[in-house]
Amino acid sequence: MALIVHKYGGTSMGSTERIANVAKRVAKWARAGHQMVVVPSAMSGETNRLLGLAKELAPEKLTDACLREMDMLASTGEQVSVGLLSLALQAEGVPAVSYAGWQVPIKTSNAYTKARIESIDEERVRRDLAAGKVVIITGFQGVDADGNITTLGRGGSDTSAVAVAAALKASECLIYTDVDGVYTTDPRVAPKARRMQTVSFEEMLEMASLGSKVLQIRSVEFAGKYKVPVRVLSSFTPWDIDINEEARSGTLITFEEDEKMEKALVSGIAFSRDEAKISVLGVPDKPGIAYQILGAVAAANIEVDVIIQNLSKDGKTDFSFTVHRNDHARALDLLKNEVLPRLGEAQVVSDTHICKVSIVGIGMRSHVGVAAKMFQTLSEEGINIQMISTSEIKTSVVIDEKYMELAVRTLHRAFGLDQTASSPA
Amino acid sequence: MALIVHKYGGTSMGSTERIANVAKRVAKWARAGHQMVVVPSAMSGETNRLLGLAKELAPEKLTDACLREMDMLASTGEQVSVGLLSLALQAEGVPAVSYAGWQVPIKTSNAYTKARIESIDEERVRRDLAAGKVVIITGFQGVDADGNITTLGRGGSDTSAVAVAAALKASECLIYTDVDGVYTTDPRVAPKARRMQTVSFEEMLEMASLGSKVLQIRSVEFAGKYKVPVRVLSSFTPWDIDINEEARSGTLITFEEDEKMEKALVSGIAFSRDEAKISVLGVPDKPGIAYQILGAVAAANIEVDVIIQNLSKDGKTDFSFTVHRNDHARALDLLKNEVLPRLGEAQVVSDTHICKVSIVGIGMRSHVGVAAKMFQTLSEEGINIQMISTSEIKTSVVIDEKYMELAVRTLHRAFGLDQTASSPA
Repeated sequence: MALIVHKYGGTSMGSTERIANVAKRVAKWARAGHQMVVVPSAMSGETNRLLGLAKELAPEKLTDACLREMDMLASTGEQVSVGLLSLALQAEGVPAVSYAGWQVPIKTSNAYTKARIESIDEERVRRDLAAGKVVIITGFQGVDADGNITTLGRGGSDTSAVAVAAALKASECLIYTDVDGVYTTDPRVAPKARRMQTVSFEEMLEMASLGSKVLQIRSVEFAGKYKVPVRVLSSFTPWDIDINEEARSGTLITFEEDEKMEKALVSGIAFSRDEAKISVLGVPDKPGIAYQILGAVAAANIEVDVIIQNLSKDGKTDFSFTVHRNDHARALDLLKNEVLPRLGEAQVVSDTHICKVSIVGIGMRSHVGVAAKMFQTLSEEGINIQMISTSEIKTSVVIDEKYMELAVRTLHRAFGLDQTASSPA
Repeated sequence: MALIVHKYGGTSMGSTERIANVAKRVAKWARAGHQMVVVPSAMSGETNRLLGLAKELAPEKLTDACLREMDMLASTGEQVSVGLLSLALQAEGVPAVSYAGWQVPIKTSNAYTKARIESIDEERVRRDLAAGKVVIITGFQGVDADGNITTLGRGGSDTSAVAVAAALKASECLIYTDVDGVYTTDPRVAPKARRMQTVSFEEMLEMASLGSKVLQIRSVEFAGKYKVPVRVLSSFTPWDIDINEEARSGTLITFEEDEKMEKALVSGIAFSRDEAKISVLGVPDKPGIAYQILGAVAAANIEVDVIIQNLSKDGKTDFSFTVHRNDHARALDLLKNEVLPRLGEAQVVSDTHICKVSIVGIGMRSHVGVAAKMFQTLSEEGINIQMISTSEIKTSVVIDEKYMELAVRTLHRAFGLDQTASSPA
């Protein structure tokens, strides 16, 4: 018997029929003797419907007072969900009680539409759990110090669930999603991609920020900070699947590098096709040059990813970076019209046909030669590396986008990630 | 400059376009220098939609825990309304802030789905009003002592508005509805029915309970208890109607019998076609007989309206009463099978083709002969009176239902209620 948190997304809550199925699944866990807390999202489409109504009436320029009302509106979606799920559980004969964020309370900052959770009072929830009730808490929302309703922004229900699990010191937080776990890479690119049984939260952070959109990155940060074991698993399995099988399914995000963790140096291959490369060539190699170039880009609210500065030669250096492909034209304009005129003979070249491929693995920390093996593997396939960027548990390269699938599949095989008959997953 | 409460029903809030019109009307009042509090209902159809979803999932037998969830669900309808109206006001350039019942807070009993308002904290609202904001408060709902959301039952938004007006000692509570006021009788029955400029709350209570369904009867009781001036007026006038004209329109429910009140002995003619008459004839005239008959009826949860016991003759008496027509067959069965066997030779007769017509007027208190004039008027038209019942400000007669329209129109004229060219309304 354990204290377990379940989180269900909008698709799982998308109709009364689906909500009835969620209730049956939760009831199964409760009947197995677990103390259950459930954090559902709004029914799919509901948040958009509400914000659509708001858009028809709101002024063009949204003030803080307007954002406050947006949160009043949007928070009702989850309140409907918790009420319905509680009724469905009671129809199953399972005692249940629902709470809006303010009733727990889940206290947040007052940054409407993107508030951060500050504290969760566990007392009321514990009392209900002790009384044998399933406790259902609205995702996505809380209340600020002045009693105003706040929301956490899109995907905030993941964060709510992890935060509730942290506050209650839950044994595990199960996030039911439309994928059955975290994969070594995207199976659509590398058909031999394998579901990981476990992944460290640091790897998960790198994977998430590199495009594996399984979990909101903030929820992963939260899980890391409070060491909440989080399991990502499929909401598409039948509700009456054997509970022990269900409890082992999906991917567990862990915080301990213990024996149970997979021993691979590299855990997964991430990639992104959304970037463009911009190079400023022949700039004077003197202090402040990076700021002159990147400061202007940042001031225009353009996010920069990989940044490389080459060794200087004859007092000149080359400077390259990547931006989101949507920002490419704007960044280029900015450099040509505002930055270059101050840099003498420098010139700008750019390339939108690039991609970024990364190997991610907590094992890289303690092993040398992992990056070298990556470079060798790509070289053997004749793939030219344009840029390299490394962090403690990740090595990224920028290459021509036409080689992306080849690079991902080759690296996946080279680092021993391919699915085999004896694969544990 | 005054503190004014506006209440808008679901039809007025039925679409974003209509909400924008409500915002324009409220903005007009705010710009005229009034401190404004607005209590809107849920968008029309929304409460039924939510309860429909609940019905699909809830167990057949609704426990108190289920009713609690119904209130979680149903209360979201008004929360959406207040958020949207606040945004629309801000689009008009009028500062506004919305509150759910629990945020004010409006404290209620814990009787889910039919809670009663116990107290309203005015501090937060007053602070916002002093800061020049329009305050928008959800109708229909509040919060119990344990922080659970409660609703007041159907039509509860009228009660919310009146209660908020009472707490704030508002100058007036304006209830915008789909009728333009309270009439001397139903214009569909008596085309010369006239809108009353004022009506006493006692008369309004009698009119409401007799079928003039303009306001929830609980809101009228509340208004009477706290002496809140309530005005019923039309939501169909253009929002940009002259504010002074609007402020004088509709019907004001008053609490003082001052010079301004209309001097009529009779203020209105109410009627009901929903009743049936049952008579028990030849019962022994002895103590406990009324209880023997009506106790059984009440025990079966059948509501009894008019009750008449005739003078006894030869130790026997006749006993008549009216019940709702839907309860007629059940009441008759009950009497024949359970009550009569214990009453010796008594027999039961009944009539479903009756109606009740009442004259209502606070002036009746201090004037004799009003009832006599009613009887005379009906007699002159050849209408036979079957039963008579009187209260301080009302006289009701039961007559054959085929005479109903004739009786209403004749009494309306006889008591000087007919609309004339010089009529003030």
